[in-house]
Amino acid sequence: MDPRVREHAETVCDHSVDLQEGDNVVIDAHPVAEDLVTALHEVAADRGAHPLAVQSRADGRFRRAFLRNHDGDFSLSEHVMALYEEMDVYVAVRGSDNVTETSDVDSETQAAYNRATQPLLDERLSGRWCLTQYPAPANAQLARTSTEGYENFVWDAILRDWDAVREFQSQMVAVLDDASEVRIVSGAETDVTMRVDGNPALNDYGEKNLPGGEVFTAPHPDSVEGEVYFDKPLYHQGREVTDVRLTFADGEAVDHAAGKNESVLTEVLETDAGASRLGELGIGMNRAIDRFSYNMLFDEKMGDTVHMAVGRAYEETVGEGNEHNDSAVHVDMIVDMSEDSRIEVDGEVVQENGTFVFEDDA
Amino acid sequence: MDPRVREHAETVCDHSVDLQEGDNVVIDAHPVAEDLVTALHEVAADRGAHPLAVQSRADGRFRRAFLRNHDGDFSLSEHVMALYEEMDVYVAVRGSDNVTETSDVDSETQAAYNRATQPLLDERLSGRWCLTQYPAPANAQLARTSTEGYENFVWDAILRDWDAVREFQSQMVAVLDDASEVRIVSGAETDVTMRVDGNPALNDYGEKNLPGGEVFTAPHPDSVEGEVYFDKPLYHQGREVTDVRLTFADGEAVDHAAGKNESVLTEVLETDAGASRLGELGIGMNRAIDRFSYNMLFDEKMGDTVHMAVGRAYEETVGEGNEHNDSAVHVDMIVDMSEDSRIEVDGEVVQENGTFVFEDDA
Repeated sequence: MDPRVREHAETVCDHSVDLQEGDNVVIDAHPVAEDLVTALHEVAADRGAHPLAVQSRADGRFRRAFLRNHDGDFSLSEHVMALYEEMDVYVAVRGSDNVTETSDVDSETQAAYNRATQPLLDERLSGRWCLTQYPAPANAQLARTSTEGYENFVWDAILRDWDAVREFQSQMVAVLDDASEVRIVSGAETDVTMRVDGNPALNDYGEKNLPGGEVFTAPHPDSVEGEVYFDKPLYHQGREVTDVRLTFADGEAVDHAAGKNESVLTEVLETDAGASRLGELGIGMNRAIDRFSYNMLFDEKMGDTVHMAVGRAYEETVGEGNEHNDSAVHVDMIVDMSEDSRIEVDGEVVQENGTFVFEDDA
Repeated sequence: MDPRVREHAETVCDHSVDLQEGDNVVIDAHPVAEDLVTALHEVAADRGAHPLAVQSRADGRFRRAFLRNHDGDFSLSEHVMALYEEMDVYVAVRGSDNVTETSDVDSETQAAYNRATQPLLDERLSGRWCLTQYPAPANAQLARTSTEGYENFVWDAILRDWDAVREFQSQMVAVLDDASEVRIVSGAETDVTMRVDGNPALNDYGEKNLPGGEVFTAPHPDSVEGEVYFDKPLYHQGREVTDVRLTFADGEAVDHAAGKNESVLTEVLETDAGASRLGELGIGMNRAIDRFSYNMLFDEKMGDTVHMAVGRAYEETVGEGNEHNDSAVHVDMIVDMSEDSRIEVDGEVVQENGTFVFEDDA
């Protein structure tokens, strides 16, 4: 077994979920991730925890079979709920043998299933959890690279000194926590401002997401003004949307365009009232992630990028008394900040062409 | 997908476990059985049941990793117990990519784990359950045949008219239910008698075991007299024991011998007091099983055979007030009855060279 698999498992257990003796653990993974699940069993045994491997990922063949053969009148699985209620730690492993496996599941059926099983999701996210990635060939294919190249990419992003990452990123947290207005400028087409005062900035250093590597907060929903060109393609429900342009006025995306699959973008923005406003501003700071891989778990943490999500804001990024943007969607899109770009906070440049002011000191 | 996979899943759901709307189902299988687990999800969806796929088979790579890295001080997984308590149906699928995967797990560790998790096993067997087989290449290899040949063998044994099987076998149940003494004679080396009066004979027609195909009861533990030569090799803990001979007096195996690996046989018989007495007499009646495949789920149902198990008797085969043979082991061994053989019940021949008296009427 590649020794990085065992290191990966140790990082999940010791860093991400802080595994303790007696913890009841559920590991949800596709068989392609068998090596990692095996290593997680090794580490769990060593720490005196109780692992159970399940296979119920939303993008898998079993879920597809279930959804396509159901009459749509879904109800909660009480035995799975009982399992989750006694669970201390949930480890979800991305990675499959076909990333488009559920592309022929009717989206209304999918939505009905999600509504009926929402309490399972809530219960799963109520304790310690971690979402990570196994570098399977199908995911390498999605990233348009070789399997070996993808393994290096994934494990370089995951096997980091996360304490050092936390320290480094805490400087950006301090900047945003003091901020009132953030301005993002990139090239000739992106110049957008938004207010973030009172909204906490969170430091993602590889706990609930592995890899981590971003600092993120929520803009005030009605404060966003200006134009954004998203350099990196958006990959939504199996379709690629390129060259997305959004124009904001009073927080709302009043105009939008895309190069390819503009209708997908339109559909997202028209989901509900919150879907046409920003719910997140994130600063990607994991420089081990140096390529776009069509996988938001990695893409949004890419070094020298920022991302903005239309739709739902994370509860913990909205300060008391501030407005919370609510929506059924949360769709991230990425701006390349490596060239001809800057982030300004209350009129002061905090990042220029990818380099932060607190790095200039070094 | 081979259409027999879907038929297999339907047989499990509709015949073996009588799946009902709302049933909470757990399916425990290795990834090699992915097609069958997919089909079980299809059928479960169609019937309005709730399936969850887990991977916790005792012979798998995850269990091996867990056991080899544990200090041996095992305790119960409370979340798995909670899952089982809310479960209505348990489907266990045999089949793996290496049938000797756990051969390097220390047997004391294995025993300690089994003792600590006994309540899980009891809970799992307290409801509706089915143990079946997926015809994976490694299992074909164990059976010393091609994968295609093994697929045919497995599905021929499983996809039967189980109502007709029940009817046919009920004739043997009637014979044994009225019996006091059973005598098994085969060739020059097997002539053994045992009392079974008051002990119910059970009709196995593919419910808890799929394939089914046997009628079985318990001998009185102190009643067995005579000699048995077991024609078919015994495969115990990864080792093959050939040409087993047992001599019984007052129910106890007072003498034993084997061609290969006699020490394994000795170890079994010396496990505890009950291990040297019979706990089961079974009549194999599934003639679709025409070959030995080193898999007791099939071998013990083979047509034209009888099997006897040393060790524990099944509760439900011991009549009220009759003695129950208790033991930590239950090891089946098989006698070929196709030639120069007969089963006598209270002095009357009920089977000769594999043909039952109730078949003579046809």
